[in-house]
Amino acid sequence: MEDNLLLLSNSQTHNMGVLEHAHEALIDFLAGQRAIYFAPYAAAASAYDSYTATIQEAFKPFDVTVTGLHTVDRPVAALRDAEVLFVGGGNTFRLLKTLHQLDVLNIVRERVTRGELRYMGSSAGTNMACPSLRTTNDMPIVQPASFTSFGLIPFQINPHYQDPPAGSTHMGETREQRLLEFLDENDVPVVGLREGSWLRKRGASLKLEGLTAARIFRRDTEPQEYQPGSDLSWLLTLPTTFDQSRS
Amino acid sequence: MEDNLLLLSNSQTHNMGVLEHAHEALIDFLAGQRAIYFAPYAAAASAYDSYTATIQEAFKPFDVTVTGLHTVDRPVAALRDAEVLFVGGGNTFRLLKTLHQLDVLNIVRERVTRGELRYMGSSAGTNMACPSLRTTNDMPIVQPASFTSFGLIPFQINPHYQDPPAGSTHMGETREQRLLEFLDENDVPVVGLREGSWLRKRGASLKLEGLTAARIFRRDTEPQEYQPGSDLSWLLTLPTTFDQSRS
Repeated sequence: MEDNLLLLSNSQTHNMGVLEHAHEALIDFLAGQRAIYFAPYAAAASAYDSYTATIQEAFKPFDVTVTGLHTVDRPVAALRDAEVLFVGGGNTFRLLKTLHQLDVLNIVRERVTRGELRYMGSSAGTNMACPSLRTTNDMPIVQPASFTSFGLIPFQINPHYQDPPAGSTHMGETREQRLLEFLDENDVPVVGLREGSWLRKRGASLKLEGLTAARIFRRDTEPQEYQPGSDLSWLLTLPTTFDQSRS
Repeated sequence: MEDNLLLLSNSQTHNMGVLEHAHEALIDFLAGQRAIYFAPYAAAASAYDSYTATIQEAFKPFDVTVTGLHTVDRPVAALRDAEVLFVGGGNTFRLLKTLHQLDVLNIVRERVTRGELRYMGSSAGTNMACPSLRTTNDMPIVQPASFTSFGLIPFQINPHYQDPPAGSTHMGETREQRLLEFLDENDVPVVGLREGSWLRKRGASLKLEGLTAARIFRRDTEPQEYQPGSDLSWLLTLPTTFDQSRS
């Protein structure tokens, strides 16, 4: 079976309800599945329950049950049988630290790749689908065992991609400057996924969908804009090398 | 001897030359010292020389020599005799990865604490003076051996602290939200140091100086604003605990 990924830049777009902007994509992604496990680990532990309740509410229109992965005794065992996993947004470092502690990276990677487990992410959860968290926007509030994440795709995504604010006098780096720094150290393409858009992967096919264009960054190449509907399958076969400084 | 730290939020403020906004503070900090080692490791390796040249130019008014630490054979040995170290801004993860690789953390920590080595940082270099890089704004483009940094002060600084942009529809976290996330996981105060300001530490005295107010974040406390000139020495004696989730 081919894998089935839905990677949202964000769970909620300005002036819309949670997941509302991606309603049609969710129907297509779920396609008859009735049970979802939700990983709330990007939130503070004290907020796991309320976060899961919000997601349960957002999934009501889809006639599915949503179970917080934090409520099961053995997450690895649950993921061995699960059919859909949704990893929510929040702080990517906190999320990855917990995923390493729970030791769920291998089982998710294997079952998603074999097409047995559908994977849906938003924001930090989308970042986790990449080989590494290295293109997160989040603050490193805790130290994960390593930066290695699920690696369901071979390239990196920058969720909530943001164009430079017009007329800013702030001297901190723009998002584009940060991603160019990433390319100084890693020869790995990055999809700057603006809010309102998502990537959909099925086997060898990768597509940009949603409301906004994406900006793709590659070493020694001018950044390129791609409109929703673009076929990005070529990103799945590009060679990549982490930790290779530009000479 | 007491230690002597100058921790700038940023090296260059809007419409001013490099280090120009902190000219008086630099005269006081240097106080007759004539030789500075500059650590350019927050920049890409290919830019070490040009970055050092920029800093050499900026220090011309102070009649000091600036030597790039990357140009000496044994940085640890150089730092054993150095009198002033300036760690410049750029990417904090890249900087800390290199500092760990060069194994210079201990010698700098020891000599600064004993008052033998003056420490000056800007941006990423200021972050390095904290116990950890956990309050950096930078993208984790490479993975350092650990998040532990020089620890010349017991609390954290967030350089380039930025207030939320008015009327933004962006769903990503504001800087304040990020720092509150840090406080969810760590009971450690954070000074949000706006561009144009700096902290000056000498022994048991800590002072906020410069052009802008700072915003100080503590767990279970409303964030507080402090004006330039404020005595912040109380920050040096507060208890701190990393990796302690808020219950």
